[in-house]
Amino acid sequence: MKPLGPIPAGFTARDGELVIGGSTASALIDQADDTPLFVYSRDMIAERIEALRAAMPERLSIHYAMKANPYGPLLEFIADLVDGLDIASQGELQQAREAGYLPREISFAGPGKRDEELRAAIRAGVTLNLESEGEAERALEAARLLKVTPRLAIRVNPDFELRGSGMKMGGGAKPFGVDAERVPALTRRLLEAGADWRGFHIYSGSQALDADAIIESQAQTLDLASRLAGEVGIDLSHLNMGGGFGIPYFAKDTPLEIEAVGAALRERFTSLPANLAETQFAMELGRYLVGEAGVYLTRIVDRKVSHGTTYLVTDGGLHHQLAASGNFGTVVRRNYPVAIANRFDAEPEEVVNVVGCLCTPLDRLADDAHLPRAEIGDLVAVFCAGAYGASASPAAFLGQGPALEMLV
Amino acid sequence: MKPLGPIPAGFTARDGELVIGGSTASALIDQADDTPLFVYSRDMIAERIEALRAAMPERLSIHYAMKANPYGPLLEFIADLVDGLDIASQGELQQAREAGYLPREISFAGPGKRDEELRAAIRAGVTLNLESEGEAERALEAARLLKVTPRLAIRVNPDFELRGSGMKMGGGAKPFGVDAERVPALTRRLLEAGADWRGFHIYSGSQALDADAIIESQAQTLDLASRLAGEVGIDLSHLNMGGGFGIPYFAKDTPLEIEAVGAALRERFTSLPANLAETQFAMELGRYLVGEAGVYLTRIVDRKVSHGTTYLVTDGGLHHQLAASGNFGTVVRRNYPVAIANRFDAEPEEVVNVVGCLCTPLDRLADDAHLPRAEIGDLVAVFCAGAYGASASPAAFLGQGPALEMLV
Repeated sequence: MKPLGPIPAGFTARDGELVIGGSTASALIDQADDTPLFVYSRDMIAERIEALRAAMPERLSIHYAMKANPYGPLLEFIADLVDGLDIASQGELQQAREAGYLPREISFAGPGKRDEELRAAIRAGVTLNLESEGEAERALEAARLLKVTPRLAIRVNPDFELRGSGMKMGGGAKPFGVDAERVPALTRRLLEAGADWRGFHIYSGSQALDADAIIESQAQTLDLASRLAGEVGIDLSHLNMGGGFGIPYFAKDTPLEIEAVGAALRERFTSLPANLAETQFAMELGRYLVGEAGVYLTRIVDRKVSHGTTYLVTDGGLHHQLAASGNFGTVVRRNYPVAIANRFDAEPEEVVNVVGCLCTPLDRLADDAHLPRAEIGDLVAVFCAGAYGASASPAAFLGQGPALEMLV
Repeated sequence: MKPLGPIPAGFTARDGELVIGGSTASALIDQADDTPLFVYSRDMIAERIEALRAAMPERLSIHYAMKANPYGPLLEFIADLVDGLDIASQGELQQAREAGYLPREISFAGPGKRDEELRAAIRAGVTLNLESEGEAERALEAARLLKVTPRLAIRVNPDFELRGSGMKMGGGAKPFGVDAERVPALTRRLLEAGADWRGFHIYSGSQALDADAIIESQAQTLDLASRLAGEVGIDLSHLNMGGGFGIPYFAKDTPLEIEAVGAALRERFTSLPANLAETQFAMELGRYLVGEAGVYLTRIVDRKVSHGTTYLVTDGGLHHQLAASGNFGTVVRRNYPVAIANRFDAEPEEVVNVVGCLCTPLDRLADDAHLPRAEIGDLVAVFCAGAYGASASPAAFLGQGPALEMLV
């Protein structure tokens, strides 16, 4: 038996069924008219952001990193709850505009921006987080030709990393940002070129659950930002402190203590160096805002036994849930939180493997999982499906096509 | 420095540029009008199949497993070169029909077939490779309601595995097929139910480069098929022997010696047991037929140095080349064959990291690669891109969208 990840708080049962946003799983599937289905809960997203705002200093803006989940209705819903949007491509810019975001609320980071992407962003008035000196020159040239003052920030490759983060984005050689020691020179260049200066973007890692590690990296981020501004001899207008707040996916993962993070940041904000006194601070979060608010529902199409092992074969799989299958940046596969959605309050009574419908041994949703007895037609719920699910999976693989999505 | 995988035979340079199907990389991109671009070579696919036919016994049919590459023009092209098509979903059935395949040429395997998929396949007259007793009953019931005689084969979960295969599909408990010891009973059930009996499908693994391992598994496959037919007391009409032929992706990989495999199979075919004497044999191959005939071309949008490490940042990445990035069933990331396409005959002169444009450290195309000097605007070629590339990658991730594809 292998443990399942922890089901996020807030999911309850009604008549034995998992309830999401007030409706049972089977009612949601009736409404969508098919499986597999991603369901995202408005209430859970709103509550998460409310709790985050309560914990963090008021002065800190909250941005949504739409790469986590670009589903249109979710993008529109979250627009009223956050202070800005982080995008990573021209495609995301277009989706953001369609969802009603204003260019001045948007910042664009990403190491491989094409000339046409730079032009589109500058023309729209989006803030560019510049990833290199070369990109800076291309952006200035594009702005000159467009006769527009570009809004430019520098993404800094910090000299430290976020300890314990799922993905390290700083510390040593990286494709992201400009090495810290070269940032003052580039800052001067941008100021001299007459850009609308939007400060620094410092992102040191993601998916961390250890409050102390985040507190430490935020302190380092503030120190670095102040030092770099000091070298240039300016007060810093804006600082995007990155994200890094993780969610529990696996057994023994525990939720991040945001109160501790917020208290430490509040304390830091009371004793800022002079060149950060007027800085507008922001964090950008994706997974933390929406990840636990999403559930992937898939139907069991076969129940079979092979050499004593029971398999529940579903109509979903890695084409919608690449990360849950253990195939996206994972070395050792562990189980996400998984349940039988229409027997949500039943006791576990057997150990089974839950697999997807793809004809590959990679397509696994839960290994050796202790679950209530389930039959063909029953529903499997995979939790923590609100981020890096639908849009981060190979939907066209084996001719399957995308899952349905719904905001409730 | 980390070694690059071996560039497949048959790629040459003209005026310093990589040539694919008679055109230079830059001419192909001009024609497609953008990057990233997958290019698939008709000639290389045809030559591969011709060589395979020359090596294999004439009696062996060659099927194409379209999951490897479902690009429409490629599907149409290969139709005239193979004897059948293996599909894995209703979506693939539709793509196959659009490409002109006849239902009687098509067989459908996959562990999670939905009722509507069974109905569509039975109505069309496609052969179903049944994955369980439960699926068999669902198929018989669907056929009864449709008043159609279904074409049914049994996918056998063999008791052996293909040694050294990249993915093991047999040996022990598996979600695929029916355990060998239960196959005779299910065979009798299907025969009694009046199905159009299409024999067995025995698939023991994929991506093997060791001829001896394949020879051994083919011998085991024939033995198992004969034993199972013997237990039922029938002559076997059809045997799909699976695939398993691999291609070299990584340094030190060497091409599979198909002549040795073919010679051994020829020898076996001269002394078959009586109940296999009239059997129609088939192999299904995907990656082996098309994998090396494809090249992914992506343009360098930035060249940057971080702490002494040089990064070539491209406009492509894992959203098109998930497997090449090392994120699809890989434990230790190794480099695919990669080259600077417009300096294809130049000597390597620097060690660089080639990365994609996505804002994640997972997006790597080559680590510590020894390559000719390349600048912004130059083209990177990733080889072995003809299989499990475009359709097996998360194209929508970060708002990027799919790559262009072209058959030349």
